[in-house]
Amino acid sequence: MRVSQLAAAAGVPLATVKFYLREGLLMPGEATSRTRSEYGEPHLERLRLVRALVETGGLGLREVHSVVAALDDPPSSRHELLGIAHAALPPPVASAEHAVPGVEPDDGAEVRAWLDELGWCEHQPPALVASLVRALADVRAAGLQLTAEDLAGYAEAARLAAHTDLRVAGRATTPAEALHTVVVGTVLVDEVLATLRRLAQQAESIARAGHVDASREDGSPATSSQE
Amino acid sequence: MRVSQLAAAAGVPLATVKFYLREGLLMPGEATSRTRSEYGEPHLERLRLVRALVETGGLGLREVHSVVAALDDPPSSRHELLGIAHAALPPPVASAEHAVPGVEPDDGAEVRAWLDELGWCEHQPPALVASLVRALADVRAAGLQLTAEDLAGYAEAARLAAHTDLRVAGRATTPAEALHTVVVGTVLVDEVLATLRRLAQQAESIARAGHVDASREDGSPATSSQE
Repeated sequence: MRVSQLAAAAGVPLATVKFYLREGLLMPGEATSRTRSEYGEPHLERLRLVRALVETGGLGLREVHSVVAALDDPPSSRHELLGIAHAALPPPVASAEHAVPGVEPDDGAEVRAWLDELGWCEHQPPALVASLVRALADVRAAGLQLTAEDLAGYAEAARLAAHTDLRVAGRATTPAEALHTVVVGTVLVDEVLATLRRLAQQAESIARAGHVDASREDGSPATSSQE
Repeated sequence: MRVSQLAAAAGVPLATVKFYLREGLLMPGEATSRTRSEYGEPHLERLRLVRALVETGGLGLREVHSVVAALDDPPSSRHELLGIAHAALPPPVASAEHAVPGVEPDDGAEVRAWLDELGWCEHQPPALVASLVRALADVRAAGLQLTAEDLAGYAEAARLAAHTDLRVAGRATTPAEALHTVVVGTVLVDEVLATLRRLAQQAESIARAGHVDASREDGSPATSSQE
């Protein structure tokens, strides 16, 4: 197909496709004349990936380059490939942006010790560990006390979600599709999970209200006031 | 304490405290003279809650009013109280904002049937169900196919997180503290969970690479290329 057809097929403006070509994010087509090139399925797949990295993943050009370079010179294992995608994604909490005034910066030693206990400490992108340190500091600064049991509960929930994520990524048939899945899945499924968590809170809260009504501060037995 | 001391104790600007008083979000102090009022611990707790609702929860004035009204005239069960907090929180995906051009709007029948299967359908705020419909439509529009097994995996992860959320909220000793915990915990723990999920992806990906290297598309047996 011609470059205009490629742009239309991916739903990307032609000017953007030309920009990606100039930047080397999209490989050149096969020249069929002095002014024309022919593009195929690999170009379409790459174009969709670059678009997803920029639009959905929020990656900067430098990060897109690092991901695309990994496709052009693939590492020996899919794990390494996914590691590159993970490392390129902006962390959920940018540590500089979220500094809480009046709160001592946390050096993260406690958080790293906890990750070590979980067996999650190795080969982690430092920005991701910093994101967790910051997120937990924000929670503490807001006056919320989380116990070791609470943290273990959240870690187990995250482990289950990640298990599903890896199954989804494992169904990809090409390295480009696997990268696409990891980036789009990680970012967009965050919103699915945040919504499901609120629905589950509501559902569990209703279920508990049916058994014991913990709000009765006078200590009287629960009544089925929900029904 | 005087109003200036109250503001200082909560770390809220005095002008903001006066605004909350005028709006009826903070109950008036006890008048000790024509120009002075005395404020106590309940005022401080309320002020912190209103601040958290606005700053962390992102609630509009109308929603803050509905939450505060629930404290002034408490419902008979803590579940109802938490339900009010949940309903007041903005949903993770605002359905109008995220409309994808060229994608048919989803009427949500399939999503509601699925929530029904999970036993999560009753008494859900409609904005939350709409948020899930939209989030799943975004995932689909990005070319990601989630199977019933994937969705069940994410639901189970959310259930586990919510279970922990309810345990945290259950430790609150006053209704105001419970509301504070639900709002702050729901919003800020989203970032903790999103970070933990990425850390768990990375950890599980490494663990799997140690067993079977699924990326070897030539079908050759796995080698421990990670080490």
